Amino acid sequence: MTRYAVVGMGAVGGLYGGRLAAAGHAVHFLVRSGASAIRATGLHVTSVDGDIVLDEVQVHDHVEEVPAVDVVIVAIKTTANWALAELLPALAGPDSTVVMFQNGLGAEEQALAAVPAATVLGGLCFVCSLQRGPGRIEHVDYGAVTVAEHRSDGTPAGITPAVERLVDDLGGAGVRTSAAPDLVLARWKKLVWNVPYNGLSVVLDAGTDELMADLSARALVHALMQEVQTGAASQGRTIPDAFVEQMLADTEAMTPYRTSMKLDFDQGRPLELDAIYREPVERAVAAGSAMPRVEALAHALAFLDARRALGR
Amino acid sequence: MTRYAVVGMGAVGGLYGGRLAAAGHAVHFLVRSGASAIRATGLHVTSVDGDIVLDEVQVHDHVEEVPAVDVVIVAIKTTANWALAELLPALAGPDSTVVMFQNGLGAEEQALAAVPAATVLGGLCFVCSLQRGPGRIEHVDYGAVTVAEHRSDGTPAGITPAVERLVDDLGGAGVRTSAAPDLVLARWKKLVWNVPYNGLSVVLDAGTDELMADLSARALVHALMQEVQTGAASQGRTIPDAFVEQMLADTEAMTPYRTSMKLDFDQGRPLELDAIYREPVERAVAAGSAMPRVEALAHALAFLDARRALGR
Repeated sequence: MTRYAVVGMGAVGGLYGGRLAAAGHAVHFLVRSGASAIRATGLHVTSVDGDIVLDEVQVHDHVEEVPAVDVVIVAIKTTANWALAELLPALAGPDSTVVMFQNGLGAEEQALAAVPAATVLGGLCFVCSLQRGPGRIEHVDYGAVTVAEHRSDGTPAGITPAVERLVDDLGGAGVRTSAAPDLVLARWKKLVWNVPYNGLSVVLDAGTDELMADLSARALVHALMQEVQTGAASQGRTIPDAFVEQMLADTEAMTPYRTSMKLDFDQGRPLELDAIYREPVERAVAAGSAMPRVEALAHALAFLDARRALGR
Repeated sequence: MTRYAVVGMGAVGGLYGGRLAAAGHAVHFLVRSGASAIRATGLHVTSVDGDIVLDEVQVHDHVEEVPAVDVVIVAIKTTANWALAELLPALAGPDSTVVMFQNGLGAEEQALAAVPAATVLGGLCFVCSLQRGPGRIEHVDYGAVTVAEHRSDGTPAGITPAVERLVDDLGGAGVRTSAAPDLVLARWKKLVWNVPYNGLSVVLDAGTDELMADLSARALVHALMQEVQTGAASQGRTIPDAFVEQMLADTEAMTPYRTSMKLDFDQGRPLELDAIYREPVERAVAAGSAMPRVEALAHALAFLDARRALGR
């Protein structure tokens, strides 16, 4: 049994934290507000992989209430990562593992800056899941998780003991989980999908099926994926053309759903532009490369994000 | 007195053809349909530069009704240029001048292909004008025209007699008109404005004022303008940075209005993507250069254009 703290009980934290709790691990959720209400009603996850009902759930809305744990799973949106500098030192000791269940690039660096002695992992969630209310999650499709350890020098960490433990715990809880030796490569490969579909679903107000059915939109998707390949190459990581082709084919075959960014936009939440767009572009540019279409898409999204925030 | 045929009686043809007719030139309008209705009610242009009312107007809806003329002004949208191969040989003889009052690149080449012996000019209209109904035009702002002669080898033609005559006629009719020695340079300079503002006004559903007030959108506008500079350079034309800066400053200071592409989109008309986007990108690419952000914007616009056409 592992002791977990899960920061955030939304679409991701509620689903995976719920699975770990249902499997018998000690899971303490930290939420921004409404802990007592969730304690009263419990955690309810309707899921394509089997529902989870936890009438008793450990939920806290003050970080000091959370007891000492072995592993901290961060499952808030990257747009809330300003809170990590205060939260993580209160949750993680030098022997703790911190796992960033987040999108894009930069999360592990932010976590390590907050708790320099901790072991920091990345958790990449390939999942369609949404929060319907406090303690109410709907897991619609997919659900696999890839875990890899972060190295501050950017080199591949290999499959470490911390990675193996998390893979075992999640796998034992019924989550399709795999270990990856190179977090940087894994994160850039995930961007191959996230960069085009998240952004275009918002800017063009379109589903993945619409984007794939139109030759122009599909060409744009492909060109954006190729720029992500270029960005990965600037970080010394090779994403083969076959992987890009496979992403296109898989997306064409999949049931269309609203991307996480489209959900955020439609529900009035800020978009994860730093993690998914600005950080990759900046790293590519710093390495002497360029991602002009991705940068243009980021600018368009930032305009729409600001207009939404201004309530227009 | 010059004899003119004006193809199209929309926002551009109605305004400038109306001015030439009001100044005493013999102007024959060719319209797609409804000529008899317009003949009955006349041409009415409300204009910031003074209204035009022509109770008697020569309007035809069959090309063979149009008598021999000295100058043919083509003032239809470039999306209707498929009609030129049939229309121009019926309107222009070897001594005729054909003037393309159109956006973007490629119009003069299309005209010359239809009437190889004619003199072909480009007319660049810096105008905000719209059609309110048959024979009813509202000229809202601006209105200057730049005229230059086309050379099939792409070299600057200088200020030719045909250019001088048109400048004299339009100037004498009260239109602020200037002659340019290099049509290619003039057209690329106009693209510096048209490429960012036309496209982004549609994709982001935003006015020029909104785009300039947001730092991200402004950065995207600037980056698109710089790619147009790059495209011009690939054609041996230098657009100075100061010109780009001036465009940004002028647009910031100007009264916001809906761009011609936004008007087209909102009114369900096809977008001028070939002339304003694809042709410039293709020419740049053929010359070994690239305009990736412009290409991405073109793809996004093509998707929206197709969705509009499909009625979704």
